[in-house]
Amino acid sequence: MIQSKGYAAQNAETDLAPWNFEHREVGPHDVQLEILYCGVCHSDLHQIKNDWFPGIFPMVPGHEIVGKVIKVGDHVKNFKVNELAGVGCMVDSCQVCENCKADLEQYCLEGSTQTYNGKGRDGVPTYGGYANTIVVREEFVLHISEKLSLAATAPLLCAGITTYSPLRHWKVGKGHKLAVLGLGGLGHMAVKFGVAFGAEVTVLSTSPNKEAAAKALGAHHFVVTSDAEQVKAVTGTFDFILDTVSADHDMNMYLSLLRTNGTHIVVGVPAPYPIHPFSLIGGRKSLAGSGIGGIKETQEMLDFCAENNIVSDIELIDIKDITASYQRMVKGDVRYRFVIDMKTL
Amino acid sequence: MIQSKGYAAQNAETDLAPWNFEHREVGPHDVQLEILYCGVCHSDLHQIKNDWFPGIFPMVPGHEIVGKVIKVGDHVKNFKVNELAGVGCMVDSCQVCENCKADLEQYCLEGSTQTYNGKGRDGVPTYGGYANTIVVREEFVLHISEKLSLAATAPLLCAGITTYSPLRHWKVGKGHKLAVLGLGGLGHMAVKFGVAFGAEVTVLSTSPNKEAAAKALGAHHFVVTSDAEQVKAVTGTFDFILDTVSADHDMNMYLSLLRTNGTHIVVGVPAPYPIHPFSLIGGRKSLAGSGIGGIKETQEMLDFCAENNIVSDIELIDIKDITASYQRMVKGDVRYRFVIDMKTL
Repeated sequence: MIQSKGYAAQNAETDLAPWNFEHREVGPHDVQLEILYCGVCHSDLHQIKNDWFPGIFPMVPGHEIVGKVIKVGDHVKNFKVNELAGVGCMVDSCQVCENCKADLEQYCLEGSTQTYNGKGRDGVPTYGGYANTIVVREEFVLHISEKLSLAATAPLLCAGITTYSPLRHWKVGKGHKLAVLGLGGLGHMAVKFGVAFGAEVTVLSTSPNKEAAAKALGAHHFVVTSDAEQVKAVTGTFDFILDTVSADHDMNMYLSLLRTNGTHIVVGVPAPYPIHPFSLIGGRKSLAGSGIGGIKETQEMLDFCAENNIVSDIELIDIKDITASYQRMVKGDVRYRFVIDMKTL
Repeated sequence: MIQSKGYAAQNAETDLAPWNFEHREVGPHDVQLEILYCGVCHSDLHQIKNDWFPGIFPMVPGHEIVGKVIKVGDHVKNFKVNELAGVGCMVDSCQVCENCKADLEQYCLEGSTQTYNGKGRDGVPTYGGYANTIVVREEFVLHISEKLSLAATAPLLCAGITTYSPLRHWKVGKGHKLAVLGLGGLGHMAVKFGVAFGAEVTVLSTSPNKEAAAKALGAHHFVVTSDAEQVKAVTGTFDFILDTVSADHDMNMYLSLLRTNGTHIVVGVPAPYPIHPFSLIGGRKSLAGSGIGGIKETQEMLDFCAENNIVSDIELIDIKDITASYQRMVKGDVRYRFVIDMKTL
């Protein structure tokens, strides 16, 4: 076994703290990374607090992982020692169902194996990226370009692909009016991708003081959703809304901002929300959901980012400050993603 | 003015009763019909009872109208006296907005004029098909084939187009598994159209005793949704669900029956329903709405029905029995649409 160290929650009531644990030995198809940086996703906090479902403890969170390959199995073809590599939200899937065969491992019909707070096909709990190392089968490891800031690349593995994938799936681009709802880790990536794909991008926000930041990210317009006049002016105008918000919000109001045949895509996870059927019927509108992306698409996204010089805006933190950083994250006080410098472990 | 007679609700508390009223004189672009049959839509009852919004009273319901042209204006080009013709849910729209120009008058950006319980562009209340005659501008009058039972054609003007339009919009056909939720006026038409378009059609119902009827309509499969085993067997299998139910039901359970990328299309109007975001995110699913159809598409649907010998299954009633028929309709005791024989007026 590989002796590993990281930060873990021992149960849903405790803060993260140092913990030593083991990873499996590197098998013939495995890649071992030295983790250099790991992004901090809001879902890390949800999971260690059992907000969505009972977790598997001790839990080492983290699914925005970048680092260096330090060992490869005998049959590994696509990775070499010393190369940069990344791991996102999944480390395995059945690989034989129709979704896996269609490069949609995130929708694996048997359930994909989550990078942490999951159990591998061997029944062993998975441990994530708030740690010094990880062992992952080759098919779920991504190539990372040396062109970009490595720390700022980490959030692409979740925040990046979660916004890239729906924009690609719904073919959002030139001629489309795209609204991005929420300007956090996911939202700021959605703005960058929307602009890169040629859409006319509007940031919808409850905070008037985010306008300059939204424009700095490339957004063409900014609408304060607490201002009835501004809302009225954009009612019925958007082809797509990409909704990254996990706090409760009035979906029916946002659906009214779509034009006929428009689609509101949720990637955030608020509490169940009431939908009025007329909000959909009056204009043949759709409310859709999307979850991360498949491995092939994640690599495509990383390559697109390298070609187009797109990374996340980050604040690099010391792992000792993780609990304080969670507190800031909950208040929305981060531009736009915390990334743990794993040298501080 | 044209003296007219029909059945009206004087307010939301009274039953329908005979009432005399006036229609405008036939203008240069108008067509006057002698109404021969009018279908009874559940929304007629909702509207006279103010279930959705405060109505305009006295109210003459009815928007599944077929009859004979008895007068045409000087500039009317497409209709001649003595021809069969029909009128559906709309009698006017702005005709200049982008939706009207795209043959989507039902989504007119200024609001289309409803056949009854609306106000015309002239500000005068509109009166529907539970009457002996109606005057409608030519663009909103449909051609009706002589090939089919005229009475059984009436429900195509609402129940028909409301189910035909979304099946066409989402290109439902060969290779698709379509579930039809609810086997009433709309649902039974959805089965007929789904089968005609080549889809594999399953009726989802709470009533085991509807199986024979569903199969008689052409459905390939029947699932009793109160039977957990039957539900489990179809979980994750449908490309589309066409949801015609206006009673409350568990949307999250139905979303679980969709396969990845599946779409649940609502055409019924239940109370607002809670949606769990994971119901959409886990499988990139969509919840969509659709309302009737444009005039061009309604004519296309009528022509398709004439070519393919598709009509509604109906029970012909005397207009004196309208209140009793509403009571049966509320209980779902009708196969599948009441149609008023206007000779009984």
